[in-house]
Amino acid sequence: MAVELYNNGRHVCLAFYDLVDEATDHAVQCNQFLIVDGDHGALLEPGGNMTYNGLLMSMARYFSSRNLDYIFASHADPDIVASLNKWMVTTNCRILISKLWVRFLPHFTTGRDYSDRIIGIPDEGMSVPLGSCKLKAVPAHFLHSEGCFQFYDPISRILFSGDLGVSLLDHAEAAKPVENFEEHIPFMIGFHRRYMIANKICRYWVNMVRQLDIEQIVPQHGARFVGKEMCNKFIDWIETLQCGVDLMNQDHYRMP
Amino acid sequence: MAVELYNNGRHVCLAFYDLVDEATDHAVQCNQFLIVDGDHGALLEPGGNMTYNGLLMSMARYFSSRNLDYIFASHADPDIVASLNKWMVTTNCRILISKLWVRFLPHFTTGRDYSDRIIGIPDEGMSVPLGSCKLKAVPAHFLHSEGCFQFYDPISRILFSGDLGVSLLDHAEAAKPVENFEEHIPFMIGFHRRYMIANKICRYWVNMVRQLDIEQIVPQHGARFVGKEMCNKFIDWIETLQCGVDLMNQDHYRMP
Repeated sequence: MAVELYNNGRHVCLAFYDLVDEATDHAVQCNQFLIVDGDHGALLEPGGNMTYNGLLMSMARYFSSRNLDYIFASHADPDIVASLNKWMVTTNCRILISKLWVRFLPHFTTGRDYSDRIIGIPDEGMSVPLGSCKLKAVPAHFLHSEGCFQFYDPISRILFSGDLGVSLLDHAEAAKPVENFEEHIPFMIGFHRRYMIANKICRYWVNMVRQLDIEQIVPQHGARFVGKEMCNKFIDWIETLQCGVDLMNQDHYRMP
Repeated sequence: MAVELYNNGRHVCLAFYDLVDEATDHAVQCNQFLIVDGDHGALLEPGGNMTYNGLLMSMARYFSSRNLDYIFASHADPDIVASLNKWMVTTNCRILISKLWVRFLPHFTTGRDYSDRIIGIPDEGMSVPLGSCKLKAVPAHFLHSEGCFQFYDPISRILFSGDLGVSLLDHAEAAKPVENFEEHIPFMIGFHRRYMIANKICRYWVNMVRQLDIEQIVPQHGARFVGKEMCNKFIDWIETLQCGVDLMNQDHYRMP
């Protein structure tokens, strides 16, 4: 069932938290998103092959997939966009992803040429018109992927943060906003320590997003941060996190 | 057509350089590998959906896919292993990949439970028996993926290096060994500067592999390094390379 993150009657942001059952699917829980503005729509992080049918059916209550304008992919991991071939075949949408991954995406497909429907986002990011609004692809390189974007919606003031802010929860818990930041840290910290690349990069990101008017930070796994106070708690936390290469040493690189 | 990297009559290493046509497929060229030891076989980096049919047919001249023991995946990018669902359906093989990606792999599949055929490699690596030999999964975390392994074959003394040592060439050039290291650098440097994560990690890797008896370094895109002298030239080059987060600054993280 879709969760309404925002709805002003014309502009709607929906999240799908329950299309992966992490227990029976033996896979990491992940969230898919739909932004609708008037007659236009974009899917964010549509997910892997196992979520395609569920997402197609669930979104149909809100928006016809036949009219889908875009897929936005933060990066090229399987839980983000392994379903690409199915969306390319069944819709006319274009996909936006970092230019670093443009020539890797076709490996998800079975050989037909979709190159005119794959849009490479330049490193500095870009604005993307959707109906009467302009979504922003915000640089998040190395958080965690080498070419990585988050998507900011200036109407809802939601930052769809990809893998930054992720928590590993079951799908029922994932659908609820974070209530207590301190109690939430144990569900985030293991993932961020390994999959985020370096504290230096976290600090660049923090400096950038502190300029931004954010009401919600909504990651691609687990629970969302709602309200400026909770968003700022996350931003303050990630600013000081040692992670990725910060924590590696020669002991991690020895012949087995 | 397969290229024989090694053959002692019982133990054979084959490379497939021409299953992606980087021009007509609009995708990055990539190499697939088959190691056969007696009646046992392993595919390394089998590739995406577009290479499945070609690899299945090409390998059949050397080894029946029905008897495939393993797929080895350096990490979970689409050009490495987006074809996973097809191999799971048509063979009984197990796949080895970093434990970091075990719960992401099912997103390549359509929902059937393959968890008993997905083996998570621990961070420190492991030995994997194949016929009468023991292949080694060698830690290469952050080169480029957070959980990343290279595969060393002690019979052929080949290090299958995943994305380390990659060059961006057409498939005809990729099939030839590197002849002149200096002239080869322009085909490597752009990729390594961005997709490799930090010089600190390169140096840890260099310290590890200098202990190893290596006759060939064989990456997953582009041309291979043959002979100790050429392998050492690559090892010396990567030791000093500034890359990834080393090259990022606040200018890369600004709102578009």
